[in-house]
Order: sequence, then structure tokens, then C-alpha cells
Amino acid sequence: MKKLMEDTLVIDGLEVIDGVNLNNEGMERIEELRKGGVQCVHACCGFWDNAREMLSKIGKWNRFFQENGEIIKQVTTGEDLNQAIQEGKLGIVLGVQNISPIEDELALVEVFNKLGIKIMQLTYNNQSLVGSSCYEEVDNGLSRFGKLVVKEMNRVGMIIDLSHVGEKTSLEAIQTSNRPVAITHANPYWIYPAKRNKSEKVLSELRKNQGILGLCAYPHVINGPETTLDEFINMIMETIDFMGIDHVAIGSDKGTNMSNEYLKWMRMGRWTHEMDYGAGSKSNPNRPPSPDWFKGPADFPNIVEGLSKKGLSKNDVNAVMGGNWKRFYEEGFKKQKV
Amino acid sequence: MKKLMEDTLVIDGLEVIDGVNLNNEGMERIEELRKGGVQCVHACCGFWDNAREMLSKIGKWNRFFQENGEIIKQVTTGEDLNQAIQEGKLGIVLGVQNISPIEDELALVEVFNKLGIKIMQLTYNNQSLVGSSCYEEVDNGLSRFGKLVVKEMNRVGMIIDLSHVGEKTSLEAIQTSNRPVAITHANPYWIYPAKRNKSEKVLSELRKNQGILGLCAYPHVINGPETTLDEFINMIMETIDFMGIDHVAIGSDKGTNMSNEYLKWMRMGRWTHEMDYGAGSKSNPNRPPSPDWFKGPADFPNIVEGLSKKGLSKNDVNAVMGGNWKRFYEEGFKKQKV
Repeated sequence: MKKLMEDTLVIDGLEVIDGVNLNNEGMERIEELRKGGVQCVHACCGFWDNAREMLSKIGKWNRFFQENGEIIKQVTTGEDLNQAIQEGKLGIVLGVQNISPIEDELALVEVFNKLGIKIMQLTYNNQSLVGSSCYEEVDNGLSRFGKLVVKEMNRVGMIIDLSHVGEKTSLEAIQTSNRPVAITHANPYWIYPAKRNKSEKVLSELRKNQGILGLCAYPHVINGPETTLDEFINMIMETIDFMGIDHVAIGSDKGTNMSNEYLKWMRMGRWTHEMDYGAGSKSNPNRPPSPDWFKGPADFPNIVEGLSKKGLSKNDVNAVMGGNWKRFYEEGFKKQKV
Repeated sequence: MKKLMEDTLVIDGLEVIDGVNLNNEGMERIEELRKGGVQCVHACCGFWDNAREMLSKIGKWNRFFQENGEIIKQVTTGEDLNQAIQEGKLGIVLGVQNISPIEDELALVEVFNKLGIKIMQLTYNNQSLVGSSCYEEVDNGLSRFGKLVVKEMNRVGMIIDLSHVGEKTSLEAIQTSNRPVAITHANPYWIYPAKRNKSEKVLSELRKNQGILGLCAYPHVINGPETTLDEFINMIMETIDFMGIDHVAIGSDKGTNMSNEYLKWMRMGRWTHEMDYGAGSKSNPNRPPSPDWFKGPADFPNIVEGLSKKGLSKNDVNAVMGGNWKRFYEEGFKKQKV
């Protein structure tokens, strides 16, 4: 597995796409992704931002794309993605881990879609105007507004992400959506029982929906930093058995260089004055260290190597590492045919 | 001139584009424009709106485009315009008569450009963050921010409109801009001495800049509702002599069905509690009645007829009625080559 060519974004000719990463602009992480052979990444650019705040963030990203156009390319369509790959640039898809930017206004789904927000999570760690998160005590399912938001996202070609979304809301979103949905970064609950991981029921409905699951190396949703590569690979193999090879991918959830202030904003937003630990806990409050086989996206080749050693065919390795996201993006970013 | 085919948007095969009209969505005005043979219109969709408010307005326009896609088409590129004409749809270019939507943020020029705002006036009737209007006592010219905004509009392909802009700011904007600029709706001051009309100096610099002037039938900037068609046509002919045939067009400034509340918002925004009369005056406060030869855009054929009677060639009539705007839009909407 030493055939990785530095700065070429190519591991053995494989398609490699990271389902979520890169919470802010910065070339350091871009270089790591390139070294890891990653050709495209879904960059999370918001958690609690309202419409106006999101405009400023998008403005910064536009500038970042403009200033680094030789190395990166914004992806809003399948054509963009293919062009980025051909030109040897890292494709970046902007997404938000909350519906906060649309506030209470249905028309803002299309507005932010036009600005390049192509993936939106229905809730972050709290109840939103559309539904409940996996950390709420009660999940009431999709709200009236939520049902319309799901259909509007379907219409404009913005991918629905359920990673942090609660069980009932997730099931109702899958039922309401007339297009496949994504869980960009979570694992099966029966393998790693973290609140954010997904039940057999949700994953079985996701499979019927032709949806996609990005398996996630974030220590709080696996067995902590001690999780071995072999364990992680075994989870991938077991999930392939359950979901089918076309529906399993990777979403590393490896945030960039986060300051404590940033982590506080992610977890507490403006909604609480008390400490909230997100996927962590009082006894384990910090963003945990990563397992040593995935210190960052430059380590993607380790996952490729692990999968190959299990005897997965090159085609199937390709599907998990990026081929499935590629197909999903190409289709999902299109405006819905009427 | 009775060859106008109803609902076909064609007068004798001429290109007809209205440089500014249509301040809000509504099918009534669309029908009038179609009857007048107008193939494309610059629709003014804001005066004082901040960034957040403009998102909601754009959301409404998106919905309007979606619901009436058989009849109208949003135009953000030359290709869109040509497609609209081919399909027999009315093309609509969104623009704002103020830089209020970008607030104090340079990056929002590109953001609103991506949302389809392709024309922006540097000031409405007041000093803005970029410069001064024709109604300010003192015009300090382009601000530091203003110079950057002009260049950023150049870069992204958003047309600079100077219609309500003061003399000094206009001259500095023309000097700063490295692309042709527009005055979408005003007349030569030496013919009609209204504050909003343009001096010989401004129009002479505009000509050197390869810019374009949309002559305007708004009663306050001609000789009131009594202005005859012949007078108006004479102004067009004289302006062609001064500017050259390639730089003269029409911007009717014929707002839709305005309520008093709307007129108050246009003139007073949030910046005053006292009545402000805009281009009117205390003795002539209301939006004046239109001259009887231009009650609305269905009367565009009258201007065509007037120009033809003066002996203007069909090619030249075409240039003034729409050909010049078409060329200007096709070029001006493009992103600037680096």
C-alpha cells in the first residue's frame, strides 16, 4: 500500500471521498487530505449559524476557493466532481450540520442550495424547527415544517443528512423523502452503543431507501482511541453484510485543528450557559485523541489496506472508499425531475 | 406598427428590453410587458433591504419563477437571455437599486451575484457605504469600501448602475471600473434639468467607458405627464447624436401598481420619519400619472413607431429598443477574465 503518490490524490487508482470532515477553511488540512488520497470531501461549515451568519461563512469559503483555485474546487454537481478529479484538484462540497441557516423560511432551502450548500443535517445535537436530535429526551418526529423542508430539499437537490438526528425523526424523514438520504457519519448502534449511532431499524429503512451510511472513526462513536484498525475494519465488513456493498462509505468526522473556543461553540451554541459534552461526557469532556491508525485524513490508506487484507475485491474497496459517495453525490445534487 | 402579435413578445422582429421596471412579482405586469413586445426586463427587487431581508425577497422571486416557468425565465447569463427569447418567455434580470444587501461586507457581492442579483445601483437616494446619491448636498465620491465594491462587481460580473448616483461618485465609479457601467434609467440633464438626470461630463465619460444609458419616461425626469411622444423621441435622437447609437437604450422605470405604503418605503426607507419626495416635491408629492403615450410597458410599440417615423433605420431602432441592452447583458454578466 505504499503506492500512494504524494500530492496526486491517487491511491492505487481508487476513488476516495470523505463523507464529512474539514470544519473550516485552511490549507493545512487540504494538504493532509491530498496526502491521504482523498479526491473529494464534504466540508461542514456550520452548526448553529443563522441565515445572515451563514452568508458571511459562505463568503469566506468563496474567497478560499478563489485564492486556492489551483488546488481545490467547489463541487455542487456531479460534473464539478468529475472535473475536480480530472484536474487533480480536491473537490469540496459545502454542507451544514443543522437547518439553522434556513431559520423558519421554506424558501431559504433553495436560496442556500444556490449558494452551494448541498448537504444539510436536519438537526444538530438539539431539537430544531424540523425535528429532534439523538440527544433529546423525547423525539416527536418530523414537525409540520420538517415535512415540507424534506420535500423541498428533495426538489432542489440538497442531500438530507441524518447523522445526529433522533430515531423517530430519522424514520419519518426516510419515510417522507422521495429520494435516498444520507447518514454521513455514524456507526451501527449494535456494534458501538453510542447515542449517536444508528439502530437496526433505522439502518434497515435506510437500506430500503437506497440511502448511504458513512462509517465514522470519531473515538466517541467507536470504542475510544484504543479501537484497533482491525476492529474498525470488522465493523465495515459487518455493515456491508447488513446494508449491501452499495450503501456503505466513510465519513471520518475528523475536524480540523479545533480550538477549545470552537469546540464550545459546536457543543453549546447559544442555547445553553452550562457545559454540554455532545458525544462526550463529564468524565470524558474533551475531544478525544484519535486512534493511532487514523490520526487524520493522511491515514486513509490504512483503511484501504485493512479492507484489502480482509479479501474485499478492489471494486468493493473502491465502492466503500469513494465510489458510493461519488454515485450518491452525482445523483443527489441534481434538481428533482418533475 | 400594428404588427404586434399579442402574447408573442415580438414587434416586427425587434429585440426589446426594458432597462428597469417591475418592482415586484405579479403576473399582471408580466402580461403588459409581453403585450408591449418586451423580451427581457431588469426587475428592481430592492431599495433599502439588508442582507437578511434580501434573502426573503429572492426566495419569493425563486418561487415566482418556479410557478410561472412556462411564461417567464430568470436571466443570469447571456445564454439564459437567448434561451428565453428562443422559447418565447419573458426574461427577467434581478437587480437592486442600492448596495444595502451587501451591508459592510465585500464578500456579499459574490454571494448575491450567485443568487442572481446581476445589477446593483451604488446608491439609492441617500449616501450609502460606497458613495453619495444625486440628492445629497455634498457628494464625497467613492468611499474606500466603494472602490473595492466596484472592482468586486467587475470581477464577478455584476453590472454597476449609476442612475440615482451623485455626480462625483458617478465619475469616480466610471474611472475605477475596468468594465463598462450602466445608467439604467435617467436622461441628459441639459435636456431635462432634474437632479437625477446626468451632466454632459458624466455622459461623456460614460461614452468613453463604452457604457450604456437607459432613457427614461418617468414623468419627474422628463417634462411631466404632458411631455409629448415627439419630445421624448427628440431626446432619444439627440442622445444618440451625443452618445453614439451603441450606447443608448430604454429604461422605462415604470413601477408596478404601487401602493402608497410601497411608495413611502421606496422614499423613506428606515432613514427618516419625515416625508421625503424622491424625484417629486412638496407641491408634486405623488407618483405622477404617466404620459398618455406610455401608460405602461404595453405601449413600447409607440416608441418604436416614433423612432421609425424619425427615419431611424431598423437596425438602429433595434439597438435602442433592446439590441444594446442584449449585448451589454451578454458581456456584462460574464465573470471577468483574469
